[in-house]
Amino acid sequence: MEGSKTVLIVGLGLIGGSVAMALRGFEDYRVVGTDRSEQTRAFAREHGVCDAVAEDADSVLPEADVVIFAMNPRGIAAQLRHYRDCFKPGAVVTDVGGIKTSIMESASCLPETVDFIGCHPMAGKETSGIEHADGALFHRAHFIITPRPESIREHIDLLWRMGQHMGFRDIVVTTPEEHDKIIAYTSQLMHILAVATCDDEDLFTCKGFEGGSFRDCTRVAALDVPLWTELFSMNAPALCESIRKLEQNLHAYREVLESGDTERLREKLAYSADRKRKMNLE
Amino acid sequence: MEGSKTVLIVGLGLIGGSVAMALRGFEDYRVVGTDRSEQTRAFAREHGVCDAVAEDADSVLPEADVVIFAMNPRGIAAQLRHYRDCFKPGAVVTDVGGIKTSIMESASCLPETVDFIGCHPMAGKETSGIEHADGALFHRAHFIITPRPESIREHIDLLWRMGQHMGFRDIVVTTPEEHDKIIAYTSQLMHILAVATCDDEDLFTCKGFEGGSFRDCTRVAALDVPLWTELFSMNAPALCESIRKLEQNLHAYREVLESGDTERLREKLAYSADRKRKMNLE
Repeated sequence: MEGSKTVLIVGLGLIGGSVAMALRGFEDYRVVGTDRSEQTRAFAREHGVCDAVAEDADSVLPEADVVIFAMNPRGIAAQLRHYRDCFKPGAVVTDVGGIKTSIMESASCLPETVDFIGCHPMAGKETSGIEHADGALFHRAHFIITPRPESIREHIDLLWRMGQHMGFRDIVVTTPEEHDKIIAYTSQLMHILAVATCDDEDLFTCKGFEGGSFRDCTRVAALDVPLWTELFSMNAPALCESIRKLEQNLHAYREVLESGDTERLREKLAYSADRKRKMNLE
Repeated sequence: MEGSKTVLIVGLGLIGGSVAMALRGFEDYRVVGTDRSEQTRAFAREHGVCDAVAEDADSVLPEADVVIFAMNPRGIAAQLRHYRDCFKPGAVVTDVGGIKTSIMESASCLPETVDFIGCHPMAGKETSGIEHADGALFHRAHFIITPRPESIREHIDLLWRMGQHMGFRDIVVTTPEEHDKIIAYTSQLMHILAVATCDDEDLFTCKGFEGGSFRDCTRVAALDVPLWTELFSMNAPALCESIRKLEQNLHAYREVLESGDTERLREKLAYSADRKRKMNLE
């Protein structure tokens, strides 16, 4: 017996594929995956990414106890609308999108018999596609759960246990609004920074002169353009505020440098370096 | 026999110690190190960081064929002035400083019998001190050599071979001015970015929500304040220009986001991501 309950993952790209691999063996759940790409389904079958690969969601979704949508935000919204009347009553429906408010709004089309709870596995790679999926992708990552006010406690606990099984280093429950505000700074701004750094006219002449800091800061610059266009534009006000604050903080450093006041520069660097040390990220 | 020639490393911190370890076994050179800290010298002796550890530079420097100064830029300038008349005629004198124009200017005090050639091993860690020195530190790093117009070809070749022996992934010869202009962008700006990002008022509330991009971008923020105060202020005009360009490039992204023009955002992201891919950093 492969499990008496079913978790269905719709979309087996980098994240969906990694979730499938990391979820296998979770309690008494059978992990079924599907993807609109035949090639992706074939890869999933050949590499045992899931317990079973379905041709499409239609056949499995009405029987699934948990459904995870793993595609771009607009794709998630479209799938929720498409399948709104097909879910098993009592099912937990979730997603892996990098923004939450807008996705949770689109989930308001679901019937009351279904509990939609947003999830954000804060992990990724510079590459996409099932061939880069990795069951260990989440080991250094945070798992964020954003329930609706109406969400049932046992369902939140179920997603929490799934997060533990997938090996996340910690799990946080918060509101979609709080998630989006913080993520604008800790994730989206870092991606804007990376691409803006690559817009410098001197980019190509600098090869052979970049240190580890340059490689690290621009690592995410070669991003998935359609995905990040959606993520950025669906969180534009919070992201713009984060960019504005960084422009200001950069400008403040430039002013001190231009003033030639070395003592003020030293104090300013000590202040910022101390903040980083206090944050104490491993 | 430990080698018929002597390379003396003055300053056995993270970089000096790593250089010593990486240089051991180089041709027929004996690697002698010294440091003003007794504790550092004891550590170097106990851990075999060099072939020999000297109490001070005074006793070894007049016999040394190559002298490498490995301390903060102002310390290097002070040492060059202090030892200006003590070098062995024909000696090659070099340093490991992260800026070159200002250090090379201070080297103009040396007599004509000595060939000063600037070096910049583009590697580092977030931690300093000999206990973090590592002979493999340079394996992914670039080695930059900035000769004077009068520098002798064989001396440049000697430093090139030393760079190869230390395991740098590549070696570039350029002018100090060009070095400082490029480094303002590829290294100094990345450090300003990291500290400015940590100045955001939301820093401490974001713990638990940071992804790999945030960890990478702020990795260097807990920097060595006295060292970077010197590096930044001794290259202020080029650094200010780099900060100004980044402010502009960030502002351009903010404008597109504020306009709500998703198609323009997509085009802009595609342009930047493509530049990163073309740069093709491993």
